[in-house]
Amino acid sequence: MINIMRLGHRIHRDIRITTHLALTARAFLADNFYYTGQRDKKFEESISKINERWGSNFKVFYLEDHKKFLSKDKSLKVHLTVYGSLMKEKIKQIKSHKDITIIVGGQKVPPDIYQLTDLNVSITTQPISEISALSILLNEIFEGKALSNSFSDAKLKIIPQERGKKIIKG
Amino acid sequence: MINIMRLGHRIHRDIRITTHLALTARAFLADNFYYTGQRDKKFEESISKINERWGSNFKVFYLEDHKKFLSKDKSLKVHLTVYGSLMKEKIKQIKSHKDITIIVGGQKVPPDIYQLTDLNVSITTQPISEISALSILLNEIFEGKALSNSFSDAKLKIIPQERGKKIIKG
Repeated sequence: MINIMRLGHRIHRDIRITTHLALTARAFLADNFYYTGQRDKKFEESISKINERWGSNFKVFYLEDHKKFLSKDKSLKVHLTVYGSLMKEKIKQIKSHKDITIIVGGQKVPPDIYQLTDLNVSITTQPISEISALSILLNEIFEGKALSNSFSDAKLKIIPQERGKKIIKG
Repeated sequence: MINIMRLGHRIHRDIRITTHLALTARAFLADNFYYTGQRDKKFEESISKINERWGSNFKVFYLEDHKKFLSKDKSLKVHLTVYGSLMKEKIKQIKSHKDITIIVGGQKVPPDIYQLTDLNVSITTQPISEISALSILLNEIFEGKALSNSFSDAKLKIIPQERGKKIIKG
């Protein structure tokens, strides 16, 4: 079970970034997406529309409190941060766990996160994007499986084309 | 030489997405970032501040017209689109080129893009994010080199830590 936790979502300001994060999580085979901050129905609806159309059991949940969730969570808790240990050096350890929660910060990361998590992990030591960081980590965990995945319950499927667009009913 | 071309940037609405794209491009070792749409000095300044502090020769250029640039461009032109051929099947061909321009669409992709480019490539056949798509493609092209890269001209360097933050002068 792979869970993503996005901290400190802000309605309007963050909807595109959080949506890109959730789409990335879903396509790269995470199971659940928890988010804290402001509850955003528009965001939740946009992801459930994607699931309806394109398949998958990916689920979005709003959480009032990251602390309560993380202190009960028994999975390996990996916090993505530019200051953490290099992913390259931690990926074996991460992949040895079946249940993983990947925590992605928002504008301000609550200082307790560094203590509530098992690993603080950096993809590069450069400022990047939480979206690219998440895609790289999930792609490493699943060893590229997402790159040729299709969801069996999809209503619509995209058929790869050299030019133009082809969508068929699933 | 790896160039990124971001189409149809809109001031305010797209600044975060385009900034995340440029940060991803820089950290994953692209050389230049061209963008069309509305010229955005704030975006350009934010990337040059990043370069000043964290190093690299990454450059941002504004382009009035994608067509003029692409029709003169002699590098392999790869358009990232969910409708394209699977990256998995094209990555060998892409990597056989030294000069590559990766085109990333905006809200509306001009229809001539499908014809002006050499390859239309999809990372997954799922709706994801142009930011994750770009990071996965660049990481494949450079075979993970960005995951332990550091820029020699950096004023500041992040030293990976299990807990907390460590930044030193470069």
